[in-house]
Amino acid sequence: MRNPSAILIERPKGVPTARHFAIEDRPLPSLEAGQLLVQAQAWSVDPAQRGWANDAPNYLPPVAIGDPMRGFAVGEVVESRRPDYRPGDIVSGMLGWSRFAVSDGSNLDGKFTYSDLPPSYALGVLGLTGVTAYFGLLEACAPETGETVVVSTAAGSVGATVGQIAKIKGCRTVGIAGGAEKARLCLEEFGYDAAIDYRAPGLIDAIDAACPNRVDCYFDNTCGAISDAVMTRLAKGARITICGTAAITDWDPLPQGPRVHRQLLAASARMTGFLAFDYADRRHEALDALAGWLREGKVKVREHWLNGAEAAPGAIELLYAGGNTGKLLIEL
Amino acid sequence: MRNPSAILIERPKGVPTARHFAIEDRPLPSLEAGQLLVQAQAWSVDPAQRGWANDAPNYLPPVAIGDPMRGFAVGEVVESRRPDYRPGDIVSGMLGWSRFAVSDGSNLDGKFTYSDLPPSYALGVLGLTGVTAYFGLLEACAPETGETVVVSTAAGSVGATVGQIAKIKGCRTVGIAGGAEKARLCLEEFGYDAAIDYRAPGLIDAIDAACPNRVDCYFDNTCGAISDAVMTRLAKGARITICGTAAITDWDPLPQGPRVHRQLLAASARMTGFLAFDYADRRHEALDALAGWLREGKVKVREHWLNGAEAAPGAIELLYAGGNTGKLLIEL
Repeated sequence: MRNPSAILIERPKGVPTARHFAIEDRPLPSLEAGQLLVQAQAWSVDPAQRGWANDAPNYLPPVAIGDPMRGFAVGEVVESRRPDYRPGDIVSGMLGWSRFAVSDGSNLDGKFTYSDLPPSYALGVLGLTGVTAYFGLLEACAPETGETVVVSTAAGSVGATVGQIAKIKGCRTVGIAGGAEKARLCLEEFGYDAAIDYRAPGLIDAIDAACPNRVDCYFDNTCGAISDAVMTRLAKGARITICGTAAITDWDPLPQGPRVHRQLLAASARMTGFLAFDYADRRHEALDALAGWLREGKVKVREHWLNGAEAAPGAIELLYAGGNTGKLLIEL
Repeated sequence: MRNPSAILIERPKGVPTARHFAIEDRPLPSLEAGQLLVQAQAWSVDPAQRGWANDAPNYLPPVAIGDPMRGFAVGEVVESRRPDYRPGDIVSGMLGWSRFAVSDGSNLDGKFTYSDLPPSYALGVLGLTGVTAYFGLLEACAPETGETVVVSTAAGSVGATVGQIAKIKGCRTVGIAGGAEKARLCLEEFGYDAAIDYRAPGLIDAIDAACPNRVDCYFDNTCGAISDAVMTRLAKGARITICGTAAITDWDPLPQGPRVHRQLLAASARMTGFLAFDYADRRHEALDALAGWLREGKVKVREHWLNGAEAAPGAIELLYAGGNTGKLLIEL
């Protein structure tokens, strides 16, 4: 059996592009006691992979040159030397961008047990995306009924989930996304009360029009110009979740931007850096709630599929260019 | 009787200096029903007065040209047409920089009842300074025993109180102050475990030496270069209180600085803008605790007195130049 893997062959500075990867057929690993073999059905493409590929301070060491790219995947157990997993089980976790991956269980999120829902959801709304959206909004922003919640990358996988959870909680939801098509998706597919295309002129005026009572909660995935604009419109007691920084391609040296201190002070506002890993032990609280909302049709999911391992090298670049609509996945 | 008042005669941009004020003998106000007359014993000089004098977005409207400067004062009730105040009562509040002030009670903090402690403490450690230090540290930073707490303007009235409360709570306290004399005060008078003179070279190295486990809590009154340095040394789960921005003299247009988003994200850290006014209804909780610590000698206070109304015009400038050691007060 072939084992195509997306290998990091060159250290990127900023967004990894196609030239930083090569697809290689790696030897099929053999199992030792306590291990299991997973055949991937889909690889996940996530913003965090930029940080993992770069040699910069992060919460995980950088991926080594010559190793398969670190990444999430979902697949089927095809062989098991563990009592807790059987062939046929669907599992997801940080299995890396290889068709076949050996696991000792420690890098798995456990079994995907929502058998009435698509396994690919384990890489999105019923995985880290869902945990991020759920706790990043409900714990770090703690929105209350009637408050205005602004979401950047509002049509993306995390953003769309945040917007829909905020709507379920009775908030006024305002989505900021790039381009008219994504703004349309925000309104028609994800139920935002208002949508702003940040590529159109007049971003501040559009925020003012969409947020007559200013911004109570801001869930940010961008940093940069969008964030700078929203920060000038905070309501008293505003809460900001810093979930990602997609608009900034290089953090070394630290980029300059408007100082936020006076804005936080004048509004008695709070800005929190959010990592979903911090909520690992409460994961099922988020996923059970989201599975319920998915079944009720209150949360909708959009997936963007690329075909085959050959699509992997350019996938992170595509993500950062905003070329996807919905959760970006690679079908194996 | 003369009624010398410090009148704002010109709108400053940035720090108000002597030329923005004039001392005028204003007519002695006469009392209506429901009012009382207070003879000030001391005027308070506070960083917030810069913002009040400027015509910039703030939480209060700017002081009008031709009006006495907005400011806190403590004094004795000399006449009362209210049943709840009697001549001889000591009161403090936002009475303005006039020797005699009429009040309907709404701008008072109530009576100063800690009769065994100096009335001037109502303008500092037993007033807004104390409320700021107590809740800004204990609520916004929420330090735990054994954590490292870094304080900027560490020898100032708020900072010194923060450092001493953190010490009482069992934290390792690190004070950052300007000049060798203030660093000495931090160690010898306010009990910090380590003190850093930010005017000496090697600020980052000094932070590393003083904070071997990095920074769990950072109580900031400065913004600017000191804050930028501390932010590179956050511990996981760090909490930052933004209490003041003394190092930035002009917020219009917004000054540029290193973006903090990635630092907050990598450390799962939280940055909170803190206004003591938000804790007005819990004021006595802070003051009773502080009065107890003052009596036990666990919190020490340093006051810096200027003599007479004539000293008022240059006082805010002196404060921003760091020319005071301890709470800056004007004796009437």
